Amino acid sequence: MGPSRSAGFALETHPTEYRHWRLAIEPPLATLTLAVAEESPLVPGYKLKLNSYDLGVDIELADAVARLRFEHPEVRAVIVTGGLDRVFCAGANIHMLATSAHGFKVNFCKYTNETRLAIEDACAHSGQHYVAACNGTTAGGGYELALACEEIYLVDDGSSAVSLPEVPLLGVLPGTGGLTRVVDKRKVRRDLADVFSTLAEGIKGKRAVEWRLVDGVFQRSRFQEAVRERALTLAAEETQPRGPGIVLEGLAPAVTAGSVHYRYVDLKLNHDQRTAELTMCADADYAPLRAFRELDDAILRLRFHYDEIGVIILKTRGDLNVVRQADTELYHRRNDWLAHETLLLMARTLRRLDLTARSLFAVVDEGSCFAGSLLEIALAADRIYMLRDAKRAVRLASSPLNGGLLPMTHGPSRLQVRFLADPAHAEEIVGESEPFDTEAAQEAGVVTAAVDEIDWEDELRVAIEERVSLSPDALTGMEANLRFAGAENADSKVFGRLSAWQNWIFSRPNATGERGALTLYGKPERPQFNWRRT
Amino acid sequence: MGPSRSAGFALETHPTEYRHWRLAIEPPLATLTLAVAEESPLVPGYKLKLNSYDLGVDIELADAVARLRFEHPEVRAVIVTGGLDRVFCAGANIHMLATSAHGFKVNFCKYTNETRLAIEDACAHSGQHYVAACNGTTAGGGYELALACEEIYLVDDGSSAVSLPEVPLLGVLPGTGGLTRVVDKRKVRRDLADVFSTLAEGIKGKRAVEWRLVDGVFQRSRFQEAVRERALTLAAEETQPRGPGIVLEGLAPAVTAGSVHYRYVDLKLNHDQRTAELTMCADADYAPLRAFRELDDAILRLRFHYDEIGVIILKTRGDLNVVRQADTELYHRRNDWLAHETLLLMARTLRRLDLTARSLFAVVDEGSCFAGSLLEIALAADRIYMLRDAKRAVRLASSPLNGGLLPMTHGPSRLQVRFLADPAHAEEIVGESEPFDTEAAQEAGVVTAAVDEIDWEDELRVAIEERVSLSPDALTGMEANLRFAGAENADSKVFGRLSAWQNWIFSRPNATGERGALTLYGKPERPQFNWRRT
Repeated sequence: MGPSRSAGFALETHPTEYRHWRLAIEPPLATLTLAVAEESPLVPGYKLKLNSYDLGVDIELADAVARLRFEHPEVRAVIVTGGLDRVFCAGANIHMLATSAHGFKVNFCKYTNETRLAIEDACAHSGQHYVAACNGTTAGGGYELALACEEIYLVDDGSSAVSLPEVPLLGVLPGTGGLTRVVDKRKVRRDLADVFSTLAEGIKGKRAVEWRLVDGVFQRSRFQEAVRERALTLAAEETQPRGPGIVLEGLAPAVTAGSVHYRYVDLKLNHDQRTAELTMCADADYAPLRAFRELDDAILRLRFHYDEIGVIILKTRGDLNVVRQADTELYHRRNDWLAHETLLLMARTLRRLDLTARSLFAVVDEGSCFAGSLLEIALAADRIYMLRDAKRAVRLASSPLNGGLLPMTHGPSRLQVRFLADPAHAEEIVGESEPFDTEAAQEAGVVTAAVDEIDWEDELRVAIEERVSLSPDALTGMEANLRFAGAENADSKVFGRLSAWQNWIFSRPNATGERGALTLYGKPERPQFNWRRT
Repeated sequence: MGPSRSAGFALETHPTEYRHWRLAIEPPLATLTLAVAEESPLVPGYKLKLNSYDLGVDIELADAVARLRFEHPEVRAVIVTGGLDRVFCAGANIHMLATSAHGFKVNFCKYTNETRLAIEDACAHSGQHYVAACNGTTAGGGYELALACEEIYLVDDGSSAVSLPEVPLLGVLPGTGGLTRVVDKRKVRRDLADVFSTLAEGIKGKRAVEWRLVDGVFQRSRFQEAVRERALTLAAEETQPRGPGIVLEGLAPAVTAGSVHYRYVDLKLNHDQRTAELTMCADADYAPLRAFRELDDAILRLRFHYDEIGVIILKTRGDLNVVRQADTELYHRRNDWLAHETLLLMARTLRRLDLTARSLFAVVDEGSCFAGSLLEIALAADRIYMLRDAKRAVRLASSPLNGGLLPMTHGPSRLQVRFLADPAHAEEIVGESEPFDTEAAQEAGVVTAAVDEIDWEDELRVAIEERVSLSPDALTGMEANLRFAGAENADSKVFGRLSAWQNWIFSRPNATGERGALTLYGKPERPQFNWRRT
């Protein structure tokens, strides 16, 4: 079932290094053109035919979406289109999927969906409208990419269709939120969605418009121009001043077998114990944007490169007041485009943490600085341990950023979710201008356990040892259910409902067994199904 | 992995036949006492020790909950307690689970959760308040049963605890909504829920109250009396007139190898084709309560006894006006207790249909009577096919019951979910007093396809053949994602998020492999885990 550990590929890239996407900036428009280099898969073993993608393709897309926000704020609309003849995008590469380990497949789908959510976030909050220009075959993950855009246009050439052929052809679900976005975002009637999702050849032309699968169709001769006009119209609606852009510098961490070291983030790996220690440092030069970009990269490395790490111990080092001051400045400047973008990036990174399938234990000790935006890291954790020591000052603090500017995937703030039983209490904590010492933090319910200095090391050690001894699958399921209390929206349904079903289907013999549909795709044999319904 | 087809047990029972529960009526109270007969499992092969349950135990509970509503409306509070020494309930029987086929486990958990939802429905809408009197060990599914009650009281004897030991002991999730109900219903803080759900021995005494896991603890000497007082207080709050009760008669269908025949429901099984035809008949003597009870029983038989049936074809026979008249009468009398209870039962049955993991195709043809409450059956289907025939009248109709009195699990009506893109249109259909002919039904988007008489049989045949050829797992996942558009609540999260994760975990080697935790429970060997996180 594929390699056990990925080859250590970088999660960072830069437009000058793109192999699969072309990014053209022509303010107020930008165009992202997908022309996948089929001989350049992320890891050897498959060809990326027909504009099909692997993680490497999506890492470039995620980079482009991030750079458009920060480096090209003057761009108000982004056209996403295909650069091959009569192909927009054929979706995730099947041979890559069929030869990947289960955990990689699941994390691949999670990452690609996070990239799609970043596109939706840009449309909703950054005034960058994404328009999908589907100039040819738009299949599976290709249609899911289009679904992430605000509007979808399809070429009307008698053959190009949008489709989700996963169920009929592969015996799996569309992996990147397709089903949810069809009925929840585009509000396609559920029975039409049912027909569409079982029709390998998809839907084209006027019917695709009538069914709400696309927003319009144009003849090939005027397709490019018509989409461009529509993008310009969307761009013209954006009049908020933005810019000038800033450069997103490379993170270039120093990597050893046991550590990944960034400017503000330090990741120590204890492979034998299956734990990692992730420390955010806020020194006098603390820069939240860079710090959270590093955190994001570190989370992705943990997901893709260190899949046997079961517990991530979240720590901070630095000055509470430095963090609170940085937070307060961001809060006051939140209507300024750059502060706004920084907050959106911090929020996306924290959501990535919430959605990471590892046990998260935050440790609040002497020298830590869990304030405001860094307190959110602790609030994202499954448990928070805080040292109680009469001789040393151990404190944490809220900031205005805990009041809802860094929301979870399903909408509420982490404090609101934590205090679902007492919403006023969440407000009180946000409004508290003084730091909380250990007693106060425990009293306020901010921490899980306050531990005396004399028991501190033992209690932490035992808690971590117990945690890493439990079934990793059961923990993943448990955490996914306990972290997201409250009503769910389309975004959270993708990770909660859809991903969970997909995990199940991926691990079933009907998909990935020797005679499963995914395994046999492209081969002459027909899949053999166990017909029992579950 | 256990027997492929269940032994054909009945889904019906009666208090005179209970082997595991005692139902004592003492208005305004009733007491449901669990004293599981350990030598009476539903199918041979395991002992029901320590008040652990199997499906047979839950069939009795579901029966008692239904009869309390209809036969004993004068009961205003129900105490649920344990009848063994120092045991409330130890949850689902592990040996039963470990020896059951995957599909049975999943359907077992679905059914038990539907029973828990019926308890919550009685608390919320029938003025029957359930109080859990946990007079001893309350573990796993035992605590999940308590969680379904409106209030939970635990004996304070220094040893009795509430617990969810599934993750630490069995490597699976609590199967009946426990995790969701802990954080979403009881609003236990997520970090405390995390500690609780990984602590095999559970939480007892005052701490259980502080963590919101229970509503109170009482010493053993005054436990029974204190809970009784509390139940009487709850009962005294209910002053709406209810009663006199009616008798729920036995359904006693005639069963052959190829059919199950009731008074109003007829189920024909085509085992070779893997399809079933389920027909609801509304003749002049149409009685909705009985008809929907039969529908409920038929759905459960399909789930438990015919797991290779992939497509259920939903049909009706009778007079549109008979159904509309019955609906209108229920609507006008909806504040009368019996009409109210009947509507609640119809709504629960329709939700059971929504949650059934089979493809549902509704067929509207000559002689059909998809009106109002029966139209909901069609609206629960993945697709609706309607015959277009100039020579014959084929019609369907709405009734006031389509306006929200028969809601889906996540809250909205089926028309609201269908027309998420145009809520006013859902209202228009409810308000339409005339039946829809085929053109009008298609125009209004009520049906998926209107098919000319000449193509009718072929098109239906092909659609069904195509459907039954697809991967049953992919269909289950697809349908679970397309049927429930819109925001989700705690109830729907149990089926959507939690059940899906649970399915996945149940099918993983870490749980059910040869060295999995569920397989090895109670044996001397320790489970061996693949540590990779997904």
